[in-house]
Amino acid sequence: MTDTLREPAQAGAEEPTAQAGPRVSVTPPGALAAGAGDGLASVRPGEALAAAVRDVLDGLAAGAARRGGPVPAETPEALAARVARTLAETRGEEALGRLTELLAYGAADPADPACAAHLHCPPLAVAVAADLAVSALNPSLDSWDQAPAATELETLLLRELAGLAGYPGTAAGVLTSGGTESNVMGLMLARDRVLERVTGEPVQLRGLSGRVRPRIFASAAAHFSVRRAAALLGLGEDAVVAVPVDRELRMDPAALDRALREAARRGEPPVAVVATAGTTDTGAIDPLPACAALAAEHGAWLHVDAAYGGGALLSDRLAPLLAGVELADSISLDWHKLGWQPAAAGVFLVRREETYASLARRAAYLNPADDEEAGYPSLLGRSLRTTRRADAFKIAVTLRTLGRDGLGRLVDACHDLARAGAAAVRAHSRLELHTEPVLTAFLFRYLPRDPGRADEVNAALRRRLLREGLAVVGRTELPADHASGTGGGRVRLKLTLLNPHTTAVEVERLVRLVASAGEAEEAGLS
Amino acid sequence: MTDTLREPAQAGAEEPTAQAGPRVSVTPPGALAAGAGDGLASVRPGEALAAAVRDVLDGLAAGAARRGGPVPAETPEALAARVARTLAETRGEEALGRLTELLAYGAADPADPACAAHLHCPPLAVAVAADLAVSALNPSLDSWDQAPAATELETLLLRELAGLAGYPGTAAGVLTSGGTESNVMGLMLARDRVLERVTGEPVQLRGLSGRVRPRIFASAAAHFSVRRAAALLGLGEDAVVAVPVDRELRMDPAALDRALREAARRGEPPVAVVATAGTTDTGAIDPLPACAALAAEHGAWLHVDAAYGGGALLSDRLAPLLAGVELADSISLDWHKLGWQPAAAGVFLVRREETYASLARRAAYLNPADDEEAGYPSLLGRSLRTTRRADAFKIAVTLRTLGRDGLGRLVDACHDLARAGAAAVRAHSRLELHTEPVLTAFLFRYLPRDPGRADEVNAALRRRLLREGLAVVGRTELPADHASGTGGGRVRLKLTLLNPHTTAVEVERLVRLVASAGEAEEAGLS
Repeated sequence: MTDTLREPAQAGAEEPTAQAGPRVSVTPPGALAAGAGDGLASVRPGEALAAAVRDVLDGLAAGAARRGGPVPAETPEALAARVARTLAETRGEEALGRLTELLAYGAADPADPACAAHLHCPPLAVAVAADLAVSALNPSLDSWDQAPAATELETLLLRELAGLAGYPGTAAGVLTSGGTESNVMGLMLARDRVLERVTGEPVQLRGLSGRVRPRIFASAAAHFSVRRAAALLGLGEDAVVAVPVDRELRMDPAALDRALREAARRGEPPVAVVATAGTTDTGAIDPLPACAALAAEHGAWLHVDAAYGGGALLSDRLAPLLAGVELADSISLDWHKLGWQPAAAGVFLVRREETYASLARRAAYLNPADDEEAGYPSLLGRSLRTTRRADAFKIAVTLRTLGRDGLGRLVDACHDLARAGAAAVRAHSRLELHTEPVLTAFLFRYLPRDPGRADEVNAALRRRLLREGLAVVGRTELPADHASGTGGGRVRLKLTLLNPHTTAVEVERLVRLVASAGEAEEAGLS
Repeated sequence: MTDTLREPAQAGAEEPTAQAGPRVSVTPPGALAAGAGDGLASVRPGEALAAAVRDVLDGLAAGAARRGGPVPAETPEALAARVARTLAETRGEEALGRLTELLAYGAADPADPACAAHLHCPPLAVAVAADLAVSALNPSLDSWDQAPAATELETLLLRELAGLAGYPGTAAGVLTSGGTESNVMGLMLARDRVLERVTGEPVQLRGLSGRVRPRIFASAAAHFSVRRAAALLGLGEDAVVAVPVDRELRMDPAALDRALREAARRGEPPVAVVATAGTTDTGAIDPLPACAALAAEHGAWLHVDAAYGGGALLSDRLAPLLAGVELADSISLDWHKLGWQPAAAGVFLVRREETYASLARRAAYLNPADDEEAGYPSLLGRSLRTTRRADAFKIAVTLRTLGRDGLGRLVDACHDLARAGAAAVRAHSRLELHTEPVLTAFLFRYLPRDPGRADEVNAALRRRLLREGLAVVGRTELPADHASGTGGGRVRLKLTLLNPHTTAVEVERLVRLVASAGEAEEAGLS
């Protein structure tokens, strides 16, 4: 084989265009390079990427300087008008820099100590840079020949993450867009496995028969994506039984037991029990061993939604809270929460590879049988997606750079910050703590002089902080039967501490800032 | 409000830790910074990102130089062992550079002229750099207060893309992980709308009743994700009726008409017609106006899978091929194919915003009603996901940098290359062209002396090119009833030309390289 592109290709751009057939009108070489901005990211065409990256770093710095705080100090209408204006005015080579500056200016920057609303972490520089390598090379994990090294890297990373969760060597998994997709996957595998056992028909082929009324059991504080998954899967949101929770928003195992028995009495097959390890609002962790025992007793799949709480596995101090997670049939983990990755870095794991069967597919153009026999592995059957970015790479780089210990220190630092924040709330006469933090978040509220206005004032003070560009604080509502405390009301504020470089002093100042905003809001309202 | 973090926060890291409550053990400031690699990407902590990015650019260059061709010249087993070894050896600050070099070495580089197997494009430097800004700021589009500017940017971009597709101002949409997710969304909305009309019950709440047998109509050459979507949605793969195609793999509208009538006779509600605009293998475009007319006649939703062919909308030359796409109820477009974006850059559009209703959700912690009334927009109800990366940004930057015209020139250049490649195949005595390229891809095969060995030889010559690191060529199988041509056989090779900087000479050389590999394979086999 002497006729090869291997050597000449590198100088190919200089060669003249020739031998084109009569119907072919080939663009002459060089004509495209004359157009602005069409350089490829790959290193071979030279400096295009390095130059573009410099524009981005400059734009990020300029935008952050203009913003000055955690979020731009303007109304959503004013910001929207600014975005529309900039987008309309911008053309050509300046676009990258100007739009990056706009994006940075108009960001809620999770690296700002006063940005503490959501499970929205400030990503590590090393993870962001690793993600740049992925963007530049653009591997796609739906076939080996689009991602040779990335295919193996993902496989090895998943083995490592499965080990972290206490799973045996039989485990398998995939990277996902986040807990929502992971929850869909767990519930889909559960639906297919349990209903095939009950009805004798393969759900992936024949669909839902409607002869049985399958049920999913999740706590009243489970993520709304569980109900959404049931809707997507054709089971319907009504299939989800909301199991009562305690004040910390942990599932009550006695109530789960009752709910499962009632369903069994009605002949409704229990497709899955979803246990939450780290609810979005309080970080509550359902009693995993009890959930596992009850699921096993009733032949239900146990899916543990550890999208948030999975980060505890990195910390010697907090890992014991997740004891029992290794009993789950499937697990959701999100490294874009307590893992400091840019989104998306979701992980879905199953304890036994063979339970993945219902997702397996053969596509002639992606994983023909003879290629697999010849040793070319395929991850196509691992994912609901086809094209799939190599999100595993940034996680692998982060784990190798910091190690579990280094990441555990970040988790512990955020846990410390949450405890410092909760202590500051307890110490403040106009603030009320809901419960002590379990992981790195806690609920609280401002107590206005008129208790009947608590919900209104808390919701408004949060918007005031946003509008004035001072802070990004979370807001949620307690389940109706937990709206106790002084004066009732369900609205609660939330701090989610995910920036390990924030100091306790900054968190305490943020807590006082919330109280000041409450006072200002009350003054404005009355 | 004088108690603010806005000013002091920027110097906060220097302040001493104080006033922590008795249960709080706060990590002293500076302790974390001492650990390697835990710098945040945000610009405020300084140079961490710039330094990491330099490591990545160096690693990309070193890895590409070591690879030397489109793909590493080793077996999958040898590459896997190398990846495992490097991952096991690498620790600490060197991890980013070493693993980037490994990823680059072990890539199938779509920027190499001999890497032409899949709809796997070489991304533009400007798009890759824009994606870096997104990684660093980490906006998440599930709530305004995680993505203030990005929320508006996505909304405006989608309006622009809807206009490109000929949709009216009533359109809406969302960024997706790709055509597969977009197809799921289109079919989910179709399922919910059509079945609610037929059964009177809201599917998202009550689930599938099983009383009716819904049907989806797609061509035999439609993407396998259509069947997969039906399985996910609880309809089952068997719900998909495979409508026959012509030799170019275009849906036969008379056959669609017959299939719809037969289903109607059997009382099976037609949930959706899926028309493909650009099949993966031949780029075939189904007759969109005829599909639209038949879908309307039968009350079915029309979803157009233009994941590949949507790129034709950028080109004055090719856009007429997509006439009728504006009649669809929903469309899939992928800017990580003919759009030169790093994955993921999927786009899902619906013609009428109100048909999106079944996805709307209210989550107390993300989009409370009073926040929306106060002017804070929410995109939560647009997506199946919750956390969602701002993939719109890189597309917006690319469109502003190159304009539709600039992108259209790239599309035309790839179309030219495909025609040059097809001409080279036609001109070669040992190669057989399946059909002329419609977009930027074509099928062909090597004709061995023993026609009975055609499938075996073509599959093996592709693996030979991979193993020797010479070329990444696609491979697929024709539908059984189109395996005509000399000697039968269904296996075909495929070139997908997505690198606009490749020259016709390089494509012609790639075609000859395939023929040489065929000869070598035959010699080895006989």
